[in-house]
Amino acid sequence: MSIEKKSPASSSTDEKILLSHGAGGKLTQELIEKVFFKAFANPILVRAEDSAIVSPKGSSLAFTTDSYVVSPLFFPGGDIGRLAVCGTVNDLAMMGATPLFLGISFILEEGLSMEVLKKITESAAAAAREASVQIVCGDTKVVGKGAADETFVTTCGLGAVPPGVEISAANARPGDKIILSGTLGDHEIAILSAREGLPFSGDISSDCAPLNQAVAAMLERTRAVHVLRDPTRGGLATTLNEIANRSKVALEIQEAAIPISEEVREACEILGFDPLYLANEGKLVAFVGPEGAAQALEGLRSVPCGKQAEIIGVVTESRARVTLVTTVGGRRTIDVPVGTQLPRIC
Amino acid sequence: MSIEKKSPASSSTDEKILLSHGAGGKLTQELIEKVFFKAFANPILVRAEDSAIVSPKGSSLAFTTDSYVVSPLFFPGGDIGRLAVCGTVNDLAMMGATPLFLGISFILEEGLSMEVLKKITESAAAAAREASVQIVCGDTKVVGKGAADETFVTTCGLGAVPPGVEISAANARPGDKIILSGTLGDHEIAILSAREGLPFSGDISSDCAPLNQAVAAMLERTRAVHVLRDPTRGGLATTLNEIANRSKVALEIQEAAIPISEEVREACEILGFDPLYLANEGKLVAFVGPEGAAQALEGLRSVPCGKQAEIIGVVTESRARVTLVTTVGGRRTIDVPVGTQLPRIC
Repeated sequence: MSIEKKSPASSSTDEKILLSHGAGGKLTQELIEKVFFKAFANPILVRAEDSAIVSPKGSSLAFTTDSYVVSPLFFPGGDIGRLAVCGTVNDLAMMGATPLFLGISFILEEGLSMEVLKKITESAAAAAREASVQIVCGDTKVVGKGAADETFVTTCGLGAVPPGVEISAANARPGDKIILSGTLGDHEIAILSAREGLPFSGDISSDCAPLNQAVAAMLERTRAVHVLRDPTRGGLATTLNEIANRSKVALEIQEAAIPISEEVREACEILGFDPLYLANEGKLVAFVGPEGAAQALEGLRSVPCGKQAEIIGVVTESRARVTLVTTVGGRRTIDVPVGTQLPRIC
Repeated sequence: MSIEKKSPASSSTDEKILLSHGAGGKLTQELIEKVFFKAFANPILVRAEDSAIVSPKGSSLAFTTDSYVVSPLFFPGGDIGRLAVCGTVNDLAMMGATPLFLGISFILEEGLSMEVLKKITESAAAAAREASVQIVCGDTKVVGKGAADETFVTTCGLGAVPPGVEISAANARPGDKIILSGTLGDHEIAILSAREGLPFSGDISSDCAPLNQAVAAMLERTRAVHVLRDPTRGGLATTLNEIANRSKVALEIQEAAIPISEEVREACEILGFDPLYLANEGKLVAFVGPEGAAQALEGLRSVPCGKQAEIIGVVTESRARVTLVTTVGGRRTIDVPVGTQLPRIC
């Protein structure tokens, strides 16, 4: 394969892990495909959905895990505990599953304040109650001072897929309406504000929230939901490209329809960030057949985290590509980022 | 509660996490009970088994998660990848479950060699094949140089509990025979050797191995298996105390019957370690009703990791306590350790 020559994941024996390998863009995809998929090869893993769908004893279950290394641990709108619960709940919800059980594993740095740990734990517990899931197993490891940065949290989750629900990044179809559940970029700008003490910190909170009620509200009203994804690392641009590639369809997005708060828009202008690439932790994008789009939108708008939901685009028929129609009517191809705008946002 | 006064987990607002909070002894138990159980309170979690038993859609499943922070990453007999797979497979097997699916999540330090990551990943994949489980989901996060020590690996697992199997640390009954599947302490001494370059390193390998075939070999022969546990952090002494407390029974162990290799015995004498407190990663202790003890022992000895299995003691009727009958006929009460003999062994 010609790509192998320039591939950082296979170029030489002294190759190193870069921050960009964790950013959710091209290098992350390459690491996943060339290292993890290669070693762990099996048909469930390579589907690369937000959760694996497994069927022990005949029942259809969603199963997922994610680590959280966000810095700082506490930020406007959340903390690493809330993030770790919401992130895994959302990965289950993005398969249309009802999240049921979580596990949580802490890696703690020696010397971490017990009060900090209690706050994180209580926040994780509150998020679990909000999402109606039970935390049923866990683990704790402690490493010496300097061997980790305060604490890292890894959650895993188990959810039940209702009969007849088949949601996958590979299921987008021409004609599908693309719905975004709310404003973009709030999480990443909130983290940046908390980390750098930038002046817009007071106005921007992370959107970190469980999305399972939003998904349930859509699925109650229509079964025409084909794809669900939460645009976390790499932002909406990366998520849309993944869906376009997996489903082999082209997407056309209307810039003017994308909800972005005035505060995030201003922060992006000052910092030179593109909101399409900013991480979110409480937003979803849904691809819904035209016959169910109005009901799905109504469902989303019926829950607090979906009040600002909008139809932002449509699936067209040509080859895998994401095109943005700008506010002034121009057309721009939206690609996957190679690196990272900001590390340790989740 | 009078214990509260002297409790490190609730004594003051500037209390810090200590290495001993991660060692598997009294401080770990206190952290779990006073911080995690308190926040996440639910009947499944507080059972504190090696895996949670959950029943989504009516089927009985074992669900577990563990983080691995072992240092060094590679040691005689294994590495962090093999350890992370075997550890979670074993937590499922200790509930009598058939391990089916794993998830794996990597926290990588910027600058980690890609070759090292590939080796760890391939070793994890080989261990998964050995245990007949599929790794179906995963995650990667990268943190800046100095924010983690090379790599931490967190695995989660899902297993199917066969109908009629009810294994729990609370199920030990007077008269049960206590079976140990092989020699004690190999893992912890191997780690120490690899870390400190001690001269006995060449002779001692970690026992790190999946135990699900050993469990299956026992369950095929008898259903009188009441308790299964793998004596990892805190060693056999801690595991036996947990079982004695959960089942409210007294245990009597014969020192002379406990298999310990000559190399580990010598290393313990030199270092002043007690092998009863050393971590193992490929050993199990089984409590089996007297009617099935011979069959369970035969089953264990039929698999490679159980060749040296022995009956090491019996459950007696008095209050929760673990007594060791020494080789010279003395009697010694075995308690849970407060701290740690050696950190970052798993």
